[in-house]
Amino acid sequence: MRLLEEYIEKYGVVKQGHVLKVDSFLNHQMEPRIYREMGRELTRLFADWKITKVLTIEASGIALAMMAAQQLDVPCLFAKKSRTKNIDGEVYATRVASYTHGDTNDVIVAKRFLSSDDRVLIIDDFLARGQALLGLIDLCRQAGAEVIGCGIAIEKGFQEGGALVRGLGVRVESLAIIDSMSEDGVVFRR
Amino acid sequence: MRLLEEYIEKYGVVKQGHVLKVDSFLNHQMEPRIYREMGRELTRLFADWKITKVLTIEASGIALAMMAAQQLDVPCLFAKKSRTKNIDGEVYATRVASYTHGDTNDVIVAKRFLSSDDRVLIIDDFLARGQALLGLIDLCRQAGAEVIGCGIAIEKGFQEGGALVRGLGVRVESLAIIDSMSEDGVVFRR
Repeated sequence: MRLLEEYIEKYGVVKQGHVLKVDSFLNHQMEPRIYREMGRELTRLFADWKITKVLTIEASGIALAMMAAQQLDVPCLFAKKSRTKNIDGEVYATRVASYTHGDTNDVIVAKRFLSSDDRVLIIDDFLARGQALLGLIDLCRQAGAEVIGCGIAIEKGFQEGGALVRGLGVRVESLAIIDSMSEDGVVFRR
Repeated sequence: MRLLEEYIEKYGVVKQGHVLKVDSFLNHQMEPRIYREMGRELTRLFADWKITKVLTIEASGIALAMMAAQQLDVPCLFAKKSRTKNIDGEVYATRVASYTHGDTNDVIVAKRFLSSDDRVLIIDDFLARGQALLGLIDLCRQAGAEVIGCGIAIEKGFQEGGALVRGLGVRVESLAIIDSMSEDGVVFRR
C-alpha cells in the first residue's frame, strides 16, 4: 500500500536493533488519514470472505482492528494480556512472548465471544517474529473458529514471523513489507 | 444516550463489588453499532471546540477514542502504561492507580505529540474513581495543552471520579451515568 510506505519513509525512524519507530502515526499517535486508508484496504482484501469477527491483541492492534471491524460491520474482539476482575473464569488462554517488552504474557479471550461459527480476521499493527499472531491463531483453534486470514500494517520481512504464519497455511496480507532497513532508509518488498 | 443505556440494560451484568460487566459490547468484544453511535455523539458534543487531539489510555479506551478522532479528523494519542524500547526518553509521565487490576502504572506520552498548541479531548470507556482521567489531565497540564473536556462511555455516578474531575473545572460528558446498580438492575441518572 503506497500511502503507508510513504508514511514510513517520511515519518519512520530506524533505530539500532531492528527497531522501526512509527509512533508519530501508527502505534502511539495514530493519524486519522492513514488509519482510514488502512482500514479500507484491509476491508477490500477480505470483503468477500464472510468475516464474522475481527480479533486483535491489546494495545496497539486495537485501533486498526476497530477500523476494519467498523467497515466490515462485525464485532471487534481484543485478546487481553492478563486476567482482570472483569473477566470470568471461562477463557481460552495462550502465551505470547514480546521481544519489544522482553517478557511473556498470558493472553486470553472469553470463550463466549469466539466459537466454531466464527470466521475470523486477525489484525495487528506489526508482524516481526510472529509470536502475537501465532498466539491469536492458537486461541481461534482452541475455539474451533476458522482463521480466514491476518491483516497487518507493517511486516518486517527480514524476520521469521511472516514465513512461520504463512507456513501454517494462513493467508497474511501486510500493507507494507520491509525487506531491509538501516539508518540510511527502508527497502520495501515489491 | 438512550442506545447505550439499552445496551447496558440488555447485555450488562452486575457483579459483586460494584463491577459492571459490559465485555460483550464495550471493553473486550466491541460491537460496531454502539461504537459508531458513541463516536457520533461525542463528536456532536465537542464539534464546535476546535479539538486538535484525542487523548486516551491503553487499552480499552483506544477504540472509542479512535472513533471520535476519525470523525473529528484529528490524531488520536494513547498514553502507554510502561516504557518500551519503542519510546524515547523524552516523555511526560504520571502514575495511575487501577482498582480493577489492583496495581499502579507509570503512564507516559512522548513530549513531541502533546504541546501548548493542543486543544485536547480526553476519552475513556469508564469513569469510576477518576484516576485514569486525572492522570491524563496531568499529562496535558505538563505539556501546557488545554483540556477541552472528557468524553466517557459509562460513568459510575455513585463513585467519586465524576465529582473529582468536574471539581477541577473540566467538562465531563458521560454517555450513560449509573446512579446505582445491583443484581436487580441498573438505575440511570436523568
